[in-house]
Amino acid sequence: VPQQELPVTERLVSAAFELFERNGFEATTVDDIAQHAGVSRMTFFRRYRSKEDVVFPGHDELLSRIDTRLSEARPHRKGLAVADAARMVLDHYIGEGEPARARYRLTTSVPALRAREVAGIQQYQRLFSRYLTDWMASESDGELRAQILAAAVVAAHNHVLRRWLRRETEAPEQEFDHAMDIALSGFSDSAERGSTVVVFSSSTAAERVVAKLERVLGPGGTKSVL
Amino acid sequence: VPQQELPVTERLVSAAFELFERNGFEATTVDDIAQHAGVSRMTFFRRYRSKEDVVFPGHDELLSRIDTRLSEARPHRKGLAVADAARMVLDHYIGEGEPARARYRLTTSVPALRAREVAGIQQYQRLFSRYLTDWMASESDGELRAQILAAAVVAAHNHVLRRWLRRETEAPEQEFDHAMDIALSGFSDSAERGSTVVVFSSSTAAERVVAKLERVLGPGGTKSVL
Repeated sequence: VPQQELPVTERLVSAAFELFERNGFEATTVDDIAQHAGVSRMTFFRRYRSKEDVVFPGHDELLSRIDTRLSEARPHRKGLAVADAARMVLDHYIGEGEPARARYRLTTSVPALRAREVAGIQQYQRLFSRYLTDWMASESDGELRAQILAAAVVAAHNHVLRRWLRRETEAPEQEFDHAMDIALSGFSDSAERGSTVVVFSSSTAAERVVAKLERVLGPGGTKSVL
Repeated sequence: VPQQELPVTERLVSAAFELFERNGFEATTVDDIAQHAGVSRMTFFRRYRSKEDVVFPGHDELLSRIDTRLSEARPHRKGLAVADAARMVLDHYIGEGEPARARYRLTTSVPALRAREVAGIQQYQRLFSRYLTDWMASESDGELRAQILAAAVVAAHNHVLRRWLRRETEAPEQEFDHAMDIALSGFSDSAERGSTVVVFSSSTAAERVVAKLERVLGPGGTKSVL
């Protein structure tokens, strides 16, 4: 497809990535990008504040969609809301396709872009942490556990995303579901995800563990005794 | 204590933080800091590359001490090594005292410093992740679990550190031990920390859970069936 037939935004992004990869991020100017995309400098600045901005389009919009999804979480479906919200990020990158992989190559080689990406990841994590802290406020160690869970969810998401970016997986969606199960296994509201987590002191004798488990699991269904 | 009696490095750090808090980070120049500390510009640049550097002294040295501690982890004491290494960071900040709290006020109000701090936290996390990935390489989902654990450890550490920085706790060390127990509860080599974590499908009947537990816990001691 010749450059000229794409919409302006896609032309700018594709021109920017091409020049960044060919000439390096620092050496590429906004004028270079505009010229390569066949548009004016003014057209560039109507869409982006800087050349960094071209590398991370849609970040704010994605954050706000995650916020919405989390705010709509139903009782006892909060683990699902967290997994769905994290899945939006994965789907966003997979939907982008090649530009997402080009960005990955750039952020791993240009420290300024790497720093910006890390700051973006931090924003996701803070958002998850804010909701989880609110939901777990009444639990013991609620805030601590919420922050650990938010970090776990983001790490699990990044693990799968990175594998997809490096072409190490053909089935990122299935890997993602599995990764979320692991990351959310300590979340008491994630009953619908199908796990029970039980922690015992290692000094507890097996019979006492068994007795306690029978008491806990007794009436049926899933409970967390964390 | 009059400024002049402190060693040069402490005078520079204290002058920088005083000016950053009074006049703002952007408005403060290296010349201002040197003058306020009663030293030359050259003396400043012998110790720091930039005014950002004054805010995060000792970061690289701390990273390298953590690296050393993790590299010396003994078999079946790896959970302990991780907790010890994270504890070094906490102890470093507590040892600093007031300057650590002044830095916290700065990093929460100056985006450039916040970005640099987030990048620094990312470096700790990558270091923990590197060792854990190596140690867990042969486990199923080892790399995923290692990355989740590294994120959990850093989040747990940051939770306690932040509480200390905000003067919300008088007992950061005890809170830290408790936070590490929670963060490391999914780590199979952390037997010495005294926990067993067991995950069952919620559809598993209580009797089958019990039977499986007896099999697992049978010979004595602690095992993870994650």
